[in-house]
Amino acid sequence: MTSTSRTASAAHDARPHIVIVGGGFAGLWAARGLARAPVRITLVDRGNHHLFQPLLYQVATAGLSAPDIAAPLRHILRRQRNVEVRMATVTGIDKAARRIRLHDGAPDGDAADTTILAYDTLLLATGATHAYFGNDHWAAHAPGLKTLEDALLLRRRLLLAFERAEAETDPDRRAAWLSFAIVGGGPTGVELAGTLAEIARHTLREEFRNIDPASARVRLVEAGPRVLSAFPDALSERARRQLERLGVEVLTGTPVSDIDAEGFRLGERFVPARTLVWAAGVAASPLGRALDVPLDRAGRVQVGPDLSVPGHPEIFVAGDLATVVQDGRPVPGVAPAAKQMGHHVARTIRARLEGAAGAAFRYRDFGNLATIGRQAAVADLGRVRLSGVLAWWFWLWAHVFFLIGFRNRLVVLLNWTWAYWTYQRGARIIFGPAEDAPAPAAPPDHDPHSRR
Amino acid sequence: MTSTSRTASAAHDARPHIVIVGGGFAGLWAARGLARAPVRITLVDRGNHHLFQPLLYQVATAGLSAPDIAAPLRHILRRQRNVEVRMATVTGIDKAARRIRLHDGAPDGDAADTTILAYDTLLLATGATHAYFGNDHWAAHAPGLKTLEDALLLRRRLLLAFERAEAETDPDRRAAWLSFAIVGGGPTGVELAGTLAEIARHTLREEFRNIDPASARVRLVEAGPRVLSAFPDALSERARRQLERLGVEVLTGTPVSDIDAEGFRLGERFVPARTLVWAAGVAASPLGRALDVPLDRAGRVQVGPDLSVPGHPEIFVAGDLATVVQDGRPVPGVAPAAKQMGHHVARTIRARLEGAAGAAFRYRDFGNLATIGRQAAVADLGRVRLSGVLAWWFWLWAHVFFLIGFRNRLVVLLNWTWAYWTYQRGARIIFGPAEDAPAPAAPPDHDPHSRR
Repeated sequence: MTSTSRTASAAHDARPHIVIVGGGFAGLWAARGLARAPVRITLVDRGNHHLFQPLLYQVATAGLSAPDIAAPLRHILRRQRNVEVRMATVTGIDKAARRIRLHDGAPDGDAADTTILAYDTLLLATGATHAYFGNDHWAAHAPGLKTLEDALLLRRRLLLAFERAEAETDPDRRAAWLSFAIVGGGPTGVELAGTLAEIARHTLREEFRNIDPASARVRLVEAGPRVLSAFPDALSERARRQLERLGVEVLTGTPVSDIDAEGFRLGERFVPARTLVWAAGVAASPLGRALDVPLDRAGRVQVGPDLSVPGHPEIFVAGDLATVVQDGRPVPGVAPAAKQMGHHVARTIRARLEGAAGAAFRYRDFGNLATIGRQAAVADLGRVRLSGVLAWWFWLWAHVFFLIGFRNRLVVLLNWTWAYWTYQRGARIIFGPAEDAPAPAAPPDHDPHSRR
Repeated sequence: MTSTSRTASAAHDARPHIVIVGGGFAGLWAARGLARAPVRITLVDRGNHHLFQPLLYQVATAGLSAPDIAAPLRHILRRQRNVEVRMATVTGIDKAARRIRLHDGAPDGDAADTTILAYDTLLLATGATHAYFGNDHWAAHAPGLKTLEDALLLRRRLLLAFERAEAETDPDRRAAWLSFAIVGGGPTGVELAGTLAEIARHTLREEFRNIDPASARVRLVEAGPRVLSAFPDALSERARRQLERLGVEVLTGTPVSDIDAEGFRLGERFVPARTLVWAAGVAASPLGRALDVPLDRAGRVQVGPDLSVPGHPEIFVAGDLATVVQDGRPVPGVAPAAKQMGHHVARTIRARLEGAAGAAFRYRDFGNLATIGRQAAVADLGRVRLSGVLAWWFWLWAHVFFLIGFRNRLVVLLNWTWAYWTYQRGARIIFGPAEDAPAPAAPPDHDPHSRR
């Protein structure tokens, strides 16, 4: 069933209709920036929540639970009367007619309705996904970490690997279960590797009888010469040392040449590792292609100085989906950049409503932060560079400060404080297979221990 | 690959081997009760966590996140050196040979190894599952609430129903999405109905633009004449009034005659309801049948006074899987009863090791508790009966006190305090479909908004 207008009152609403696709940092900050503008906003997202992506690795390593780092979009925007939240998937964009096509509801096969949404201004902010440099078959063995679902799947795999090792009697197979590899030495990879080593050496210490979790091998594989290549050399080196002190084996200078279910190859050498994580490359959301405009090699949309699409001033792109070059370098795909872009789009829209032209976007780089483990981190803040404990505390407060919602901040602080003092990881629950499956049928007679 | 012994040291261990199947209240309390006994224990569970089932409805209604009410078994038992935890599924029991067969690892199709475990004493404590009174096809439309997976699935359905209603333009279909029904007026059903009404009327109040969540209809359907039939009449009546004050429609005296995807039937009358929950009947875990001993009508094992199986003193059954009749009435399938049974089995095993006979099990009923919503509850403590605010505080402290782990208690208290003061529900995250799926492949070209 396709419907083209929602209610009578919407049809008579004379305010310009701004449609924002994507409830991440860019989309959410654009919506909030328009709170007092004389516009009507529809924020579309295929999920129901805003996700604090920088802390996703904490969910993946069982330090936080998923709701700690996410908040429902409806809740965040409940007081902003000019915005309506729609949980839907965009399936098409018609630039000439200024309309987009949506499938309402969850993208999981439920009977969904198709809706056409007309816009006056469109902002695409659907972010990035994983890229495997042409080796898409690696995705099955080395999944990435961009969504809550990714994080929960990874958490499950990490915890199960230790369980399988505990039950395994063959020494080689046990060692393979205790071998973990993270591909990609940027902040995500570094943070994952550090916390995984922490888990193996501290969190799980007394809990197994047949294995010593501390004997787990955690490898961080980076094709380039150093980890955290966006940081100054001195901080890269410090991060590497901190990782090695935690027990991570840092392998730089060689790209992964193949990945399968048993492990990975560096050149000719094969390394057994049953659990691999991909943190090496991102590509823009496929929605960029639906726009049918010039993209860069990673699928990002090339936008003008005010973040609108050349030739289509009514279409903006912000966040990881956009590529912006500043002073000869691309603006990085980090949370602060996405926020600033979203905010700029809102400012531009407001300016136009008053008959003014929009200013050019200028990214203000407040610095880079990456944490390596307990009280170890590196922070590059321009003139100030921190590492070790001081960087860690700075990182902690910066992240918590930027979280949405007081309650989330309190819970995250509480969880971290507890984990810090006890080395425990509070969210170590493995869910069974039937989490999103339809209710199971009666058990077959031959299986005496099937649950239903 | 089948292995019959784990390590050389285990084969030379002369202590009696106690195998406990099930890490719920009965199994866990039995294991802990044997901490200082000269035995070797293997605790087998198909999941990795102990679950505080009484609070499952809180996860289902997004008041708590899953890790708040569960803790890893390995963590709980890490200091108890004579117990080993195995995450595995029991697939067969050979009473004559005193052996059980296990599939190691997660029961989700991963290549799993089969292990044979020999025991000197066996305790089966695998609990209960859902029963649909012969209408197993109802399970697909009205799932139950026994596991974390159940709770997360229900939470997803509840939150999605409001999202679908918001996007629906047809008034009848919208009303069906805003119609919820819980079948079964015991504590679980009552607690679910009350919190669901709270969510609709308070939590979601400002967050939708096209629907008024408070217009949602929550029906509690009970075949018998009153809800909470295990409580005294006066408290049943008070619970009913508290539910109605919250906006729940309580329908007693008529059993559900049919359930399908659109709703349910009471006799001839059809009631549209897109979201149904089954809280009406439980049946024992199918592992009881694998024992090949006399069972009652719900599949529970009929045990002797010391909770062992008649004719097999080396096999015990405890918790919801056992049926024990005391003073002409069956011991209820509640958490305190399961704990007491587990503890009694441990005591009996210890007594036997010292050459003494075990005492008969005697259930001490400390009373019944059920909560209906904010500051509304009923408590039947024998001579003392409470309702309203006092009962609610009693219930709160009783539950938190019995939670495992200081951290969980603190987090649960924090979450509830926050929810209480703000009417918010902190865990309102809808996860996408791919949570336990293998890493998805590259997106098809025709789908412009597929995430990968």
